[in-house]
Amino acid sequence: MAEPATATQAAAPAVALLKDELDIVIPTIRNLDFLEMWRPFFQPYHLIIVQDGDPSKTIKVPEGFDYELYNRNDINRILGPKSSCISFKDSACRCFGYMVSKKKYIFTIDDDCFVAKDPSGKAINALEQHIKNLLSPSTPFFFNTLYDPFREGADFVRGYPFSLREGVPTAASHGLWLNIPDYDAPTQLVKPLERNTRYVDAVLTIPKGTLFPMCGMNLAFNRELIGPAMYFGLMGDGQPIGRYDDMWAGWCTKVICDHLGLGVKTGLPYIFHSKASNPFVNLRKEYKGIYWQEEIIPFFQQAVLPKDCTTVPKCYIELAKQVKEKLSKVDPYFDKLADAMVTWIEAWDELNPIGPVPNGKAA
Amino acid sequence: MAEPATATQAAAPAVALLKDELDIVIPTIRNLDFLEMWRPFFQPYHLIIVQDGDPSKTIKVPEGFDYELYNRNDINRILGPKSSCISFKDSACRCFGYMVSKKKYIFTIDDDCFVAKDPSGKAINALEQHIKNLLSPSTPFFFNTLYDPFREGADFVRGYPFSLREGVPTAASHGLWLNIPDYDAPTQLVKPLERNTRYVDAVLTIPKGTLFPMCGMNLAFNRELIGPAMYFGLMGDGQPIGRYDDMWAGWCTKVICDHLGLGVKTGLPYIFHSKASNPFVNLRKEYKGIYWQEEIIPFFQQAVLPKDCTTVPKCYIELAKQVKEKLSKVDPYFDKLADAMVTWIEAWDELNPIGPVPNGKAA
Repeated sequence: MAEPATATQAAAPAVALLKDELDIVIPTIRNLDFLEMWRPFFQPYHLIIVQDGDPSKTIKVPEGFDYELYNRNDINRILGPKSSCISFKDSACRCFGYMVSKKKYIFTIDDDCFVAKDPSGKAINALEQHIKNLLSPSTPFFFNTLYDPFREGADFVRGYPFSLREGVPTAASHGLWLNIPDYDAPTQLVKPLERNTRYVDAVLTIPKGTLFPMCGMNLAFNRELIGPAMYFGLMGDGQPIGRYDDMWAGWCTKVICDHLGLGVKTGLPYIFHSKASNPFVNLRKEYKGIYWQEEIIPFFQQAVLPKDCTTVPKCYIELAKQVKEKLSKVDPYFDKLADAMVTWIEAWDELNPIGPVPNGKAA
Repeated sequence: MAEPATATQAAAPAVALLKDELDIVIPTIRNLDFLEMWRPFFQPYHLIIVQDGDPSKTIKVPEGFDYELYNRNDINRILGPKSSCISFKDSACRCFGYMVSKKKYIFTIDDDCFVAKDPSGKAINALEQHIKNLLSPSTPFFFNTLYDPFREGADFVRGYPFSLREGVPTAASHGLWLNIPDYDAPTQLVKPLERNTRYVDAVLTIPKGTLFPMCGMNLAFNRELIGPAMYFGLMGDGQPIGRYDDMWAGWCTKVICDHLGLGVKTGLPYIFHSKASNPFVNLRKEYKGIYWQEEIIPFFQQAVLPKDCTTVPKCYIELAKQVKEKLSKVDPYFDKLADAMVTWIEAWDELNPIGPVPNGKAA
């Protein structure tokens, strides 16, 4: 587990599951090894690449991949004034890809994430595991001590209420990272040499009412069920914070999933995270977030959505209202963010006018 | 992992952690191999054996173990009329051992649980792992995606609030089972051949507000912190249900831990569960519980303890009151159980008159 798998080890899967129903969304690819490494697993799928920086720079995608690429000029052209809700010079811009996709499922991954190996040395098909997670139910209302009860060789244990064994639909699947763990800047600085070598062979549902730090490095979700909540906020150029894009999406997503009775899983699959980002740069991006999260998290823990919020966009607009009311006092940034949340939903509705798309096909 | 470790593989640990602060409580030992198997790990500790059946039968404990043994006559003599709260002809009687112990920590295990092996083939010192779990804090207020942040090689991930990183004291450590999983009778009947072979290398805190099915097969707890909540109810002879003793204790314990800000962990250590109990007998014992738990679990999920319940006995008496009020309509059994809960606390107070015992030593 100390090394990523090689491209040869990453043999092609027998069947490309959900081939026509899933898009892979990647922020700027700075490293072309990335796509070569994942070729056996990603080539059957459509890629959406969202370039975060200078639009004049060209990303050269190797032959054989089916992809569309958006740079800042494209985002501005497509969204017009609403493009203000999409971050610039920050990988948070990836959420534009969620919006333009017409597929039912999204898998998003960073370009410094390579194929990991399981303890037997076999290359892990992360996408396949995410699909398994998304296609099987979640169990947010009661904890199963043998983890995912829908996995082969497992089940609900004694004492698990039978009325809850059907589970609920899974909205998101949060995968983990071997090698470089996803630490904040202070922890990176204190433990520069720490590597995650522990392969925990489990998938579990994060219980209802519990928030978690959602990392966008290795994440899949059901776009029809939860897409409009996967907004990665305002980060990067011109904004006071960075590295909280995925966290913001995770808090909003979890609160809305809990309200609507949807599930969020974490655990398998692992990817191999190859490179720690610079802790000093991270500290500059994060320091306000580290302070603000002490107020943001209690806000989300206490957030209650009214019963008439029966769809994700309605829930999201309501959350934006509560953010404005309760977090603007923390910093004027949240006032701007609350407005951007509303703009995001307007843009989403504009690009997805017919509501949820049945079976991942545009009507 | 398909076989338990042999006694030779189970080499003695270098140091017997908390030797003078922990009692091992075992209900009737029907199988003397059990103690031989665990000898390297258990011999340094004091055993409390609580015999559940006919007091005239003698349990022969192999030489070299330091133990005390209680049969029904002893329980009746020690508790007098209050002995009515201790189950007869059921392993639920083990909780009498928790009450007579004067130590800070308890480890309880069933006599069909043997030493398991980790994936490398090494015998697992279950007790040592439980002690590690109990001595390190829990994190019930926010989920850490890399599991126990206090474990070597792990930490809190990006986005985990710093104000919550100190954690809270751990009250209980719930261990798991390789080989025969802890299934209810219907699942046993449907999947008679299913074996748990998956070694999940993780310990995690069960989040605040989430209930779980606590199994008494392989369980450790801090008696000073949570002892009086570990009542295993009225099961066995003369009672309408069985196999819900540990579940009852788990629901009560979790609600009280959540109220008092204490933690409950689950995961490692594994034991090797050697023998599935008879599913037909289990079905007879369980069938009312399977029905009742559909009302019991929502009751515990909604239970709120008032602020003036600042100690475990106060919380437990309050829970008994709420059980009487809200569950007696399910069955008159709960009226009797609520009374027994009160009797249990009275008996506990009688045997533990000085309140929490500092450092596991009687004053």
